[in-house]
Amino acid sequence: MINYYSFEHNFILESGATLENSVVAYSVYGNADAEKTIWVCHALSGNSLVPEWWGGLFGENKFFDFNEYRVICANMIGSCYGSTGPSDEEAKTYPIITIKDVVKSLDALRNHLQIAQIDILIGASLGGQQALEWAILSPNKIKQLILIATNAVHSPFGRAFNESQRLALLADQSFGHTNGGREGLKAARAIAMLSYRSYSDFEIKQSETTVELKDFKAASYVRYQGEKFCQRFSPAAYFTLSKTMDSHDVGRGKESASAALSIIQAKTLVIGVDSDLLFPLKEQEYLAKHIPNASLGVIKSPYGHDAFLIEYEQLKKLLDDFINNDFNANKPTTFKSIKH
Amino acid sequence: MINYYSFEHNFILESGATLENSVVAYSVYGNADAEKTIWVCHALSGNSLVPEWWGGLFGENKFFDFNEYRVICANMIGSCYGSTGPSDEEAKTYPIITIKDVVKSLDALRNHLQIAQIDILIGASLGGQQALEWAILSPNKIKQLILIATNAVHSPFGRAFNESQRLALLADQSFGHTNGGREGLKAARAIAMLSYRSYSDFEIKQSETTVELKDFKAASYVRYQGEKFCQRFSPAAYFTLSKTMDSHDVGRGKESASAALSIIQAKTLVIGVDSDLLFPLKEQEYLAKHIPNASLGVIKSPYGHDAFLIEYEQLKKLLDDFINNDFNANKPTTFKSIKH
Repeated sequence: MINYYSFEHNFILESGATLENSVVAYSVYGNADAEKTIWVCHALSGNSLVPEWWGGLFGENKFFDFNEYRVICANMIGSCYGSTGPSDEEAKTYPIITIKDVVKSLDALRNHLQIAQIDILIGASLGGQQALEWAILSPNKIKQLILIATNAVHSPFGRAFNESQRLALLADQSFGHTNGGREGLKAARAIAMLSYRSYSDFEIKQSETTVELKDFKAASYVRYQGEKFCQRFSPAAYFTLSKTMDSHDVGRGKESASAALSIIQAKTLVIGVDSDLLFPLKEQEYLAKHIPNASLGVIKSPYGHDAFLIEYEQLKKLLDDFINNDFNANKPTTFKSIKH
Repeated sequence: MINYYSFEHNFILESGATLENSVVAYSVYGNADAEKTIWVCHALSGNSLVPEWWGGLFGENKFFDFNEYRVICANMIGSCYGSTGPSDEEAKTYPIITIKDVVKSLDALRNHLQIAQIDILIGASLGGQQALEWAILSPNKIKQLILIATNAVHSPFGRAFNESQRLALLADQSFGHTNGGREGLKAARAIAMLSYRSYSDFEIKQSETTVELKDFKAASYVRYQGEKFCQRFSPAAYFTLSKTMDSHDVGRGKESASAALSIIQAKTLVIGVDSDLLFPLKEQEYLAKHIPNASLGVIKSPYGHDAFLIEYEQLKKLLDDFINNDFNANKPTTFKSIKH
């Protein structure tokens, strides 16, 4: 179920632009009487319906058991799943929504819901960027922080990947018009799939079984992913959120990125994937090094960035060690404690 | 200077389609009386004018010295630098030109030029795919073969990268019309840049020097590369040649890829780049393992696939060891001899 929170006042963005009549769509799952609240920040193409896209971790009798926890997730502003975002016609003119803007809207919703403290704040990828920025904005509101396949500053390589996707949208002359931009979005999603996976992932799943001249499986696969995505996502929102990702820099408005990370009070678990092309492991090592009370867990996987939606056994092992055990005690070999 | 060779008969393609009135554009450099002939196969965006795009290796007093060698390079059929290729209007309907088709046209030109044997055949990337296929088609015509950052079968990851670029072209509604497809090509080139470089390359060259909300350097860089490319390349040729790359499979029509490689008689040097995303080192290891008389040299570089246009000192060292010394003698540490 989706609920809506309307801002009473205009929402002033980091850029100085104003969003009027802003709304944040959110969902609440689980046990309303639960002692513990988990807040999930979703990634680029996600929405507030957590069990639909992260059912490997969240649900009745799942690792984050809805019988035990209250689970909240809000759709990012700028997106297209209920929260305020660009219309098709506003695609090219919508103001930049930064990660800091998104987090400001989430913190306002937290206040509105009278949640004094979030027990576990978790996010992966663009969701991890939000969780991280939120733990810097409101250090005393977050008890445990889980950052997966994310970074402190979006990388030049990541920004170039996003720009190439925006160029594909802009190449579609219908982009910016009603119901336009679908072919551009198809291409953009196909490009994104390359960054979410890896050479090995494609080799394992999309290799040919015969030797002939034809439409190859790998090509058909990314085309199919693009077509499927067009049916559920808005080209204008995609364009907007890709710029949101590019905006990510915890050091903006602070002395430095590392100084910003030092503000965090939450006990933190940083998880990286050893084959992640888009958010490589060195970015999570940086986070774990500069967040005061942080550990690093590494998922070993051939599947790249998207391993956070695939490698559930490894994820659950790392999460269990972090949540249910003393994370400074004996660790599995993939779980490296950073000393400060 | 560009010369033109016209086929007397229709050119029958591997697909069964026919090209009428085909022409191959080619350039000849260096010493016409030279004892040795080098044939260069160019990569996706290249042309027959070798010193313009590989001036680090080819020219007067360069490693491949035009005073010493005769150097020949032909524009691939399907391309837009003088050889037969698609018009703007034929973009979506042009027949598939396979690597085997390209090589057939090159071998016909070799016959026409009365070159009984090529002393050194060299190519990188898509050019390496041609050189490789040619050494299989005409094993007794090639004495030394140099394959750089290339493979025996184009990978699923590579084919997915190419498909995402074709989707960007197809998203541009003007593609397939006169002077159309430029915006799509801009996006396609930006995507390609990601596969030609690496996370580290972008980190080294496109990092921000200030912390502010703006058009980031990495985005501006790939956009600029896309814009520059549109001014010199044809969207229809790009679409065609990306399918040529996808077609590459030395095993097609043979028992297997490894059986095809075993046909090669040339003394062979395979060079890979340790940070190559698109043609990773394991592909060159495969070539060196299955080509009977082959050595493997590794370029250590943060720059990815494009290192073959950047790391000239390492390239020249490897080439010198191969051409001027006994390549089975003592090797530098980056130069690994494969035993058969």
